[in-house]
Parts: sequence; structure tokens; C-alpha cells
Amino acid sequence: MTTNAHDWFTAAVEALAEPQGQRVWSIIVSFLGDMAQDDGAGISSAALTRVITPLGIKPEAIRVALHRLRKDGWTDSKRRGRGSVHFLTPHGRVQSAQVTPRIYDPTACTTAEWHMLIAAPPSGLELLDALSEGAPDGVIRVNRHTGLAPGPAPAPMSDLLIANARIEHVPTWLQEELFPAPLRQSCASLDAALAPHGTPPALDPLRRACLRTLLVHRWRRIVLRHPRLPVQFHPTDWTGESCRTKVFELLEQLPQPSLSELETAEPLPMTLDIPPPPDAAH
Amino acid sequence: MTTNAHDWFTAAVEALAEPQGQRVWSIIVSFLGDMAQDDGAGISSAALTRVITPLGIKPEAIRVALHRLRKDGWTDSKRRGRGSVHFLTPHGRVQSAQVTPRIYDPTACTTAEWHMLIAAPPSGLELLDALSEGAPDGVIRVNRHTGLAPGPAPAPMSDLLIANARIEHVPTWLQEELFPAPLRQSCASLDAALAPHGTPPALDPLRRACLRTLLVHRWRRIVLRHPRLPVQFHPTDWTGESCRTKVFELLEQLPQPSLSELETAEPLPMTLDIPPPPDAAH
Repeated sequence: MTTNAHDWFTAAVEALAEPQGQRVWSIIVSFLGDMAQDDGAGISSAALTRVITPLGIKPEAIRVALHRLRKDGWTDSKRRGRGSVHFLTPHGRVQSAQVTPRIYDPTACTTAEWHMLIAAPPSGLELLDALSEGAPDGVIRVNRHTGLAPGPAPAPMSDLLIANARIEHVPTWLQEELFPAPLRQSCASLDAALAPHGTPPALDPLRRACLRTLLVHRWRRIVLRHPRLPVQFHPTDWTGESCRTKVFELLEQLPQPSLSELETAEPLPMTLDIPPPPDAAH
Repeated sequence: MTTNAHDWFTAAVEALAEPQGQRVWSIIVSFLGDMAQDDGAGISSAALTRVITPLGIKPEAIRVALHRLRKDGWTDSKRRGRGSVHFLTPHGRVQSAQVTPRIYDPTACTTAEWHMLIAAPPSGLELLDALSEGAPDGVIRVNRHTGLAPGPAPAPMSDLLIANARIEHVPTWLQEELFPAPLRQSCASLDAALAPHGTPPALDPLRRACLRTLLVHRWRRIVLRHPRLPVQFHPTDWTGESCRTKVFELLEQLPQPSLSELETAEPLPMTLDIPPPPDAAH
């Protein structure tokens, strides 16, 4: 590892570390989803610690987060040799697989074919609620009574008015409801953090794992918080597509390391000096 | 006039006279819209009385109704010889012309191309309200936030989500909101009243005017109380299209008399014995 590469890596991690504090359990989920989503894939405590302590996370925070993830049924652990190995449960794998296509989709949404569902109280609203709570690419709520979903209309549902729709004009109020101000700010902040780094130098597997985890974690928290919608739905200050381009340019230059490379890697000779978050609840 | 023709006429008028009482001003508007909509067209008190007293209306009720129509700016009157002649004002002609295409349209609606307008409070709702209160073939309200209108989407309106829409399924709740139960009952009652009369015999101009006025009046009160919508929006018990067919079959067999034929006609040798309505307010 050249000094230049190490400096580049350190600068990138410092720029990308979250300003509002890091949710350790969420970083672990991002790591497992990115590098250990397959059945049978797992990582030792030691290797996990090597990957995420360079992001400014303390080993005891990792233990607390793993305890929480086990309690919530996302991960499980088993003894191996002198340590433990951690892996996604079947439930955790399903959750992770469900959002993977959205997180790793390098293309902007260009859906032109939609359908609209309009309910009346009370049974139609319950049905619309159920449809909205389904898959991440399910029904997008326009208002309490109205849902919008990609693709052609489904079979008749007795309580709903159903129409195939081509969206001709999206008003500002809807753009801002679908992409709320705090999300727009988070996205602009990631977009700005990604801007100055340019082409990364060749990095070793552990540094690639650190940076991929941080990048996937930041991007995941943006991309899963809004529906997949084409540009006519975007507020004028939405930087999501610029951000997407930068995220995938960088990810492509950080090839995914294998788990065995992480198990055998030397710990990085550094700990970032990232101040603790103001609210370190988790 | 044969006895047979007179009996047929009497039976038809009795069957078609409104069970819930007749709004005399509305019958006069129906008559003027049908036979005296042109600028310069008018009818004397004597001829108007000859046309509508056979429907069971008293001459003093005609005087009261004409007073109300003048006060509301719908009609005006001027002296001619020993009597008065009554005619639509320019305002009345505009109102009448606006609903004429809907009343006299012999074809069912088969519109396949719609657009949908969705508002958010408060300015969008005000715009949607304004659009809904416009022409009778304007925006049909699906709910407080949503309007549906025939034809392709208009130019963008800043406060509205606008989509071109093909309606795939109309739920029962919407069918019943758009065609409320009292309207369905009125329509079924007209449909039943029209059923048994068959081909009319040759009738003189005054009897044709009587029957046309009654028919147009009954049909007008049904057709203007619901939006023009294709069959998928109709409740299963909606008899509007059956009714439409019968109304236009009968109208076609009752050629429109000229106003001068009505001015010179002999009064009919009959007065129907229709009981006064329970609520004869107007």
C-alpha cells in the first residue's frame, strides 16, 4: 500500500463518515448485505472489527449492535475456534434480498406506464394501506385515498377505482411530499461528500471492504427512503441521480473482496478520529 | 283527431306525469328550451296555457312560475295585443344552450380517453372545485381530492397532479356515488312509464307539444343529474340507457310543432285529473 493510496483512503472515509452519527447495526447490515448475503456466508468478530473500526466505531459498539441484531432476528452467531462467526438469518437474508435490487440499481427510473388506485373508506383504504406497505416497488401513496404503482393495472379489486395512467404533470407539493426536505438534505450532503475524490488508487481488500461498507450504508439510507420515480417527480433540488452516478462509479472501482481475504487481512494501521455523535443512542 | 289517438295521448300523459309533483317553472323552461330557444322566439300566455294545462297545471300556477322565472332572469315578457308573449332572456338562452347537447344526445357515452386531476389542500382544492363547477361535461368528482374529465390531459396546472388515464375498474361505491339511489329510482320510474306505449298514432301539433314538453322535462331532470359516463361507471340497476332509447324513439315520432301552430291551436277538450302533489311549494 503506497502512502498516497492510504491518504486517499483516509480522506475518503473521513469525508463519507456520517455527520449525524453512525448507526452501527445499520452499518453491519449494509456490510452483510453487500458481502455476506448468501446462505452459509459469515464473518468472524475479528474480521468484522477490522472492517468497521476504521470507520470510527468502537469494538464494544459492535458487540452491542450484534446483540440487538440477534434479538431482532436479523443475524445469528455461532462459535468457531476461539471466536464467533456472524451471519444473516433466513429472515435477514429475505429482508436484505428484498432491498438489494433497489440499492444496487445503477439506472434512473424511466417508468412511463403507471396505474392509479383510488379507494373510498373504509375497506378500500385498508386495502390501499396493505398494498402500500408491501414491496418497496409497490404502491406509492399520492394521498390518503390515492396510490400510484408502476406497470399496467392489476386485475379488478372490488373496492378500488383502477386506471392505467400516464403522468403528465407533477405538482411541487407532491414532489416535496415524496422527497421530504430532510431526505433532500441528506442526499445533497452525500453528493457533496462524493464529489472531490476522483479515481481511487489501487486499494487492498480490507480498505475496499471499509469503503464499500460506508458507501453502501450511506446510499442505502437515501435510496430506501423514497419511491423509485422518474425525473418528473423529482424536486428541482433533488441530487439523487447525480449521487447515484457517483456511488456506482466509485463502487465499480472498489471490487468486492472475498470474505476469506477479510479473515486473513492485517488490521489497518490507523483509527479515524471521528468525534462521537451528539446522540449516540445506537 | 281519432278517439283512439286521443285515448293514447291521455294514457301517455297520465303515465308520464310526475308522481312527486311538477315544478311548473321547470316545465316552462323545458318547453322554451325545446321549442323557443332561438333569439326572437316566444309564446303567448294563451298558447303556453294551452300546451301545459293538459299536464294538470293550473293557469295561476303558470302565472306564479313566470313571475319567478322573470325574477331569476331566465325569461322576460312583453305585451302583444291583449296578452303577453314570453321568451328566454339572453342569460336564459345561454343556460338552455349549454345543456341542450346533453339533453338531446341520443347516444350512450363511450369515452375511453380520460384524464385525472389530483389536488392537495388548499389552493389545488379550490382549483379543482372551480373546474368541477364549470360546464356539465367538465370535471367529474371522484372524491374531494380527485377529478376525472374526458379527453386528453390539459396543459400543466401548477397545483394538480395530472395523468392521462384509461379506466380499468370502477368500484361499486363510486358507481353509487355518481348515480345516487334517488336518481336511479327516478330513472327506473320514467323507464317503466315509457315502456308500454308503443308507436304513437298521428297527433296534432298541440298534443305533440304537450307530450314533448312532458317527455323533455322528465328526461332533462334525469340526464342533467349525473355525469356523462360509459357503461363501466353505471350501477347494475341503472336504467338510463334503456330510458334514453325509449325517450328518443318517442321524441322522433312526435315532430316538433311550430310556435305559430301552437298560437292558432284550439284548446284540448280535456283536463287531466292529476292529484295535486303532497308538497306543492313550486
